[in-house]
Amino acid sequence: VAPAIHIGPEAQPEIVAAVEAGGGRVVPLAEAAGLVWIAPESQLGELPAGIRWVQLQSAGVEPWMERVAANPQITFTSATGVYATEVAELALTLLLAGVRGLWRYGAATSWDPHDDRVLEGSTVAIVGAGGIGRALIERLAPHDVQVLAVTRRGLDVPGAARTLPADRMSDIWGVADHFVIAAPATSATRHLVGAEQLAAMPAHAWVINVARGSLIDTDALVAALEAGSIGGAGLDVTNPEPLPDGHPLWSQPRALITPHVANPPSAQFRHLARRVQENVRRFAAGEELEALVDTGRGY
Amino acid sequence: VAPAIHIGPEAQPEIVAAVEAGGGRVVPLAEAAGLVWIAPESQLGELPAGIRWVQLQSAGVEPWMERVAANPQITFTSATGVYATEVAELALTLLLAGVRGLWRYGAATSWDPHDDRVLEGSTVAIVGAGGIGRALIERLAPHDVQVLAVTRRGLDVPGAARTLPADRMSDIWGVADHFVIAAPATSATRHLVGAEQLAAMPAHAWVINVARGSLIDTDALVAALEAGSIGGAGLDVTNPEPLPDGHPLWSQPRALITPHVANPPSAQFRHLARRVQENVRRFAAGEELEALVDTGRGY
Repeated sequence: VAPAIHIGPEAQPEIVAAVEAGGGRVVPLAEAAGLVWIAPESQLGELPAGIRWVQLQSAGVEPWMERVAANPQITFTSATGVYATEVAELALTLLLAGVRGLWRYGAATSWDPHDDRVLEGSTVAIVGAGGIGRALIERLAPHDVQVLAVTRRGLDVPGAARTLPADRMSDIWGVADHFVIAAPATSATRHLVGAEQLAAMPAHAWVINVARGSLIDTDALVAALEAGSIGGAGLDVTNPEPLPDGHPLWSQPRALITPHVANPPSAQFRHLARRVQENVRRFAAGEELEALVDTGRGY
Repeated sequence: VAPAIHIGPEAQPEIVAAVEAGGGRVVPLAEAAGLVWIAPESQLGELPAGIRWVQLQSAGVEPWMERVAANPQITFTSATGVYATEVAELALTLLLAGVRGLWRYGAATSWDPHDDRVLEGSTVAIVGAGGIGRALIERLAPHDVQVLAVTRRGLDVPGAARTLPADRMSDIWGVADHFVIAAPATSATRHLVGAEQLAAMPAHAWVINVARGSLIDTDALVAALEAGSIGGAGLDVTNPEPLPDGHPLWSQPRALITPHVANPPSAQFRHLARRVQENVRRFAAGEELEALVDTGRGY
């Protein structure tokens, strides 16, 4: 039988379609066995006794932890991972825009061609091969580039010419042409790109950060950009963030800064819909759901 | 036996490697059966009697036509088509940069996020599916977009969801989200994008031109950008070209203009090398060469 799912606080058409594509039917909250909640936790009241599963809209689940702990009879699932392809899309955008000289031409008011590089034929190091890194490797596949992946343990990543473990990361800085940072922010990855790493990069290197600002030592990056020792930096995340007015990064022409827009609101329903459809299907089939929220791990 | 090839005026290492990879050997001009000429026609003197094949560096061959006609015993081959992948790379760069808001963020000096669109999930029309169009379709493949191709006769293009013949092109303007112009400049394609086509496009549409400036009616484009009736334009070619200082396109924030740099000099040898290697191989094997220059067609 088709599981009874409520979508709240409003029944977004993309999510309704996803519930139905997953084999469910959309019902009022009081009749529901599952709930897709497209709003902050604070806007959700007490759950009816019939609810056995709640799908959250967000990838981060900190505000939900208390409710999750208080309702062990309910399965909570998050949106973690579903936004990876858009983040990878922006990483590729920043990389291409940097390498192909858009940082220069975007502000130009005169026809002044330069002999910029192309991405094709280059070596791109991707630090972190979770969902974002893997989605980026897929998007780089037709570009005739060689991908070096760095993962914690160094297990082979599909599509990468080589994968290195994190403890051999120092090998990549002098070898790759460009660098994309897509690793989680932990104490071990703080300032993963600092003065030493920047100094080892080739003069044409673009450094892209779509992870967290803390992974790059901002002062060292500003110094490298000022000295012209790297090609440039494409940053969707910064440290500090938001980057304050007057910060020296704003005045570096070779810094392409997007204000943490890798996953824009207008695209979120589309991706959440994938997770909803799959989890409704699994809920109907009695299978384990995707992206279970685990109070023990805190994510 | 390995064919005797001269490379002039200078033996570029990439081209030497290509000749050898194709099974040839590099010799002085007087001993050569084939010549790879990496310079304008005007710098080449009279050809020794032993020369049976000349590989040109350029895709355009107009300056060679007199010599080609005067030397029917010699086969001339051009570089036509070998630069398609870099042009496609720039087309994708401009498309992504436009859609993801880099036209806006590139000039920003303050943290001000907007809810921009993503490329993923959109429909991209590609007008012209020659080498550039096909290379772009390959590069779009991992992006979860639907490609509509327009070709002269409308024969199916691999990777396109639909292919339309040129005489049904009017169908695409209201259907696709974004438009990439990659068709040859002929009398039939002049102002292919004009006021009527721009008016039919969705308000978020980006129009990319990597073909020739004449394919877009510049005045109509400026009017559409001023009215905000399209998302923006990414132009590697313009009409007039070079775009003069003070032209209204320069002051449109939603016009991303690159000064005809789709095929930058630094990348040319890499691509010419592919053509040289393949043609040396064919020359050695007695096969028909790639990209024969034909005086009758004028290209």
